[in-house]
Amino acid sequence: MATTRRILVIGGDAAGMAAASRARRLCGEECEVVALERGEFTSYSACGIPYWVGGQVEDRDQLIARDPAEHRRRGVDVRTRTEATALDLDRGQVRARRLDSGEELWLDYDELVLATGAHPVRPRLPGIDADGVHGVQSLEDGQALLDTLARTEGDRAVVVGAGYIGVEMAEALIRRGYRVTVVDQAEQPMTTLDPDMGALVHEAMCGMGIETVRGATVSEIATEDGRAVGVVTDRDRYPADVVVLGLGVRPATELAREAELPLGASGGLLTDVTQRVRGHENVWAGGDCVEVYDLVSGEHRYVPLGTHANKHGQVIGSNLGGVHATFPGVVGTAVSKVCDLEIGRTGLLERQATEAGLDFHTVTVEATSRAGYYPGASPMHVKMLAERHTGRLLGTQIVGREGAAKRVDIAAVALTARMTVEQMTQLDLGYAPPFSPVWDPVLVAARRALAAVRGD
Amino acid sequence: MATTRRILVIGGDAAGMAAASRARRLCGEECEVVALERGEFTSYSACGIPYWVGGQVEDRDQLIARDPAEHRRRGVDVRTRTEATALDLDRGQVRARRLDSGEELWLDYDELVLATGAHPVRPRLPGIDADGVHGVQSLEDGQALLDTLARTEGDRAVVVGAGYIGVEMAEALIRRGYRVTVVDQAEQPMTTLDPDMGALVHEAMCGMGIETVRGATVSEIATEDGRAVGVVTDRDRYPADVVVLGLGVRPATELAREAELPLGASGGLLTDVTQRVRGHENVWAGGDCVEVYDLVSGEHRYVPLGTHANKHGQVIGSNLGGVHATFPGVVGTAVSKVCDLEIGRTGLLERQATEAGLDFHTVTVEATSRAGYYPGASPMHVKMLAERHTGRLLGTQIVGREGAAKRVDIAAVALTARMTVEQMTQLDLGYAPPFSPVWDPVLVAARRALAAVRGD
Repeated sequence: MATTRRILVIGGDAAGMAAASRARRLCGEECEVVALERGEFTSYSACGIPYWVGGQVEDRDQLIARDPAEHRRRGVDVRTRTEATALDLDRGQVRARRLDSGEELWLDYDELVLATGAHPVRPRLPGIDADGVHGVQSLEDGQALLDTLARTEGDRAVVVGAGYIGVEMAEALIRRGYRVTVVDQAEQPMTTLDPDMGALVHEAMCGMGIETVRGATVSEIATEDGRAVGVVTDRDRYPADVVVLGLGVRPATELAREAELPLGASGGLLTDVTQRVRGHENVWAGGDCVEVYDLVSGEHRYVPLGTHANKHGQVIGSNLGGVHATFPGVVGTAVSKVCDLEIGRTGLLERQATEAGLDFHTVTVEATSRAGYYPGASPMHVKMLAERHTGRLLGTQIVGREGAAKRVDIAAVALTARMTVEQMTQLDLGYAPPFSPVWDPVLVAARRALAAVRGD
Repeated sequence: MATTRRILVIGGDAAGMAAASRARRLCGEECEVVALERGEFTSYSACGIPYWVGGQVEDRDQLIARDPAEHRRRGVDVRTRTEATALDLDRGQVRARRLDSGEELWLDYDELVLATGAHPVRPRLPGIDADGVHGVQSLEDGQALLDTLARTEGDRAVVVGAGYIGVEMAEALIRRGYRVTVVDQAEQPMTTLDPDMGALVHEAMCGMGIETVRGATVSEIATEDGRAVGVVTDRDRYPADVVVLGLGVRPATELAREAELPLGASGGLLTDVTQRVRGHENVWAGGDCVEVYDLVSGEHRYVPLGTHANKHGQVIGSNLGGVHATFPGVVGTAVSKVCDLEIGRTGLLERQATEAGLDFHTVTVEATSRAGYYPGASPMHVKMLAERHTGRLLGTQIVGREGAAKRVDIAAVALTARMTVEQMTQLDLGYAPPFSPVWDPVLVAARRALAAVRGD
């Protein structure tokens, strides 16, 4: 066994287990792959929790792509309910605690993969730990929320935070018959969009009967007998039978920080394009605990998304298995929906472009998802940012109904290729009346952006 | 008036009227814009005819984006029922006949735009001109077919040709309650796909109750009292109460040929990237009467599609109006559907890639349109061609249900940017459970193609 190389993975979700699985497959007998997971589950879809809560997904286990037993059958030594508590990089060891027995032990590694994920933001407010206040980060969280919903008699839900998780949870609770109020600090929901596009989301949410309170700072969760009964803001009080926190996440990098691994401004780990932690030959990191390179702005950003985590894991596993692979970076693509409203974005917002030192034009067009005469054609708004003078595409945001969100993929590929809006006007996109007007909405926006760049 | 420049457009549909409108808007008073159209209609969507016949579009006029009166209000002198009958390039004149009066006249031009479109392929078979045999190229054709359907008592329809028009018409007739047989020469429907992908379409059409006869050569339309009653092939005879021809089109370039303008192998006009006819300073051409440059193979091809026609017209009108614009070429994107089956393709088929002298790998994957656990997730097949050694993407074909067809846009942009499949594996595409699995089907195919290129 002395010649066996041990790959030790911390974190049993997307990035960690993708790395473990791929390394296991490529390395064969020459490696031992051990994965530590604090919880009970591996390789699950946290992104699916709102749909489980909303009832579209019936069973928790549908959200689990591969459980620990299956990973073990494939040769990955998964140790659940086992928490990493310290890294000793000099000695190549990780201290781990078995949560059930309390036993602590040191594990050796040759290669270390940090896939510690993220913590949900949970502000230290009075009442935040009361019964009936729920995050939705883990499967355990989702089950706890479902248990609360099952025994709650009232029908008033307050969601704190109007980002992706917040609006998805608003939909889930509407589907379960709740009257939903979404409370957010920002002036518009979806601060991943520019305010003018966020306003379209706000308007649509009102039309769905979701009350959206904007520009409100939550100061307290009101409680009675240890149970949440309302959300108190600087301006008002909103009665609640259940409170859901959807305030986003921050990188879970406490161990990395203690070990003095390099962290970016957001607290996420910094890696090179192979997902190797900078300056550390045998330490790798991926998923929600790392910062990613933004191909559009040239800066590092914190963009926790399952799709990046899977790619990171795949890249790490390939490199560990001797197959060179790189993750060149992101362009900032994200899609979401609330009821039948679809939301997509890619590239930079106005604020981000300005912060990156870019000068740009913005245009917004309204166009239809299908030929105007074809049934189901629905309007969508497409906003586009193009760099002044050069005309390079900087970002695209789309809000509409069916067929709106995934259209940002067109712009995502164009951003990756650093296309100009002029080049985009001539893109050969699929056209047929059931799928698109003869000028796809993205092309309409590109034409308008080109006119702006040319001062037309 | 001596200083007024006259732009003469032949053809009143997409390319011609887009050119006319844009030139009109940019030139102001300095130009006169005259457009000749043989039929009664302008700026209509031939692509919409199957949906009008199928009943999804109620009224013919919904297919008309801008009628002659509206064009005239905007300053374009549209002359309908006026056919161009000869070009005199040396004198800068076009001979035209007014179809109603038979009157002939010569019109001067300073700039000539040829947008003469295409003729439907109509083989010289016995019975082809019988009542009840219909093409679906023009609005007049569509109306004639609808009139036949209204007075036909039987419910048997035969569609000759299983390309885009053929399968779309099959759907239209199914929707109207007909028993539909599609007869085609090829071994698989949709020869715009590789045979293995066409086989998936065939299978799905059978499942919809559409009888598909493959590898059959039509020899005759059987008639009784001047009415079509069946389609006779080299192998069998298929009774028909109505026969629809969906055999594609060929460029309508008789005038151009007589005037010795340069034509390609398909008979389509050859232009430069500004849509100027090669070697002719003041003659422009666009739409279904031209060949287009294929950015993937580096060859010229005949790809008659409304979306290209509109772009050509826009480019011609811009250049006529003093705003430089180019149409760099196509990558061969097309999308279609038959009932709930969606079909998309872009780039080269295997046959085309071989003809272009390329060596390549092919892979086909099956993946789902949404996260597997999300309601409505449906399987799709994605086929990808990647150049041997370099790994450059050469083509993508997708057959599936909802969300399949427009996914080829991702590959279309990647082809335009000459991306490798390795670059594609790391594309930042929109992910959320209602829209995509964590690895979008296109990424799954790119990964598989990368493995093939690497000999993995």
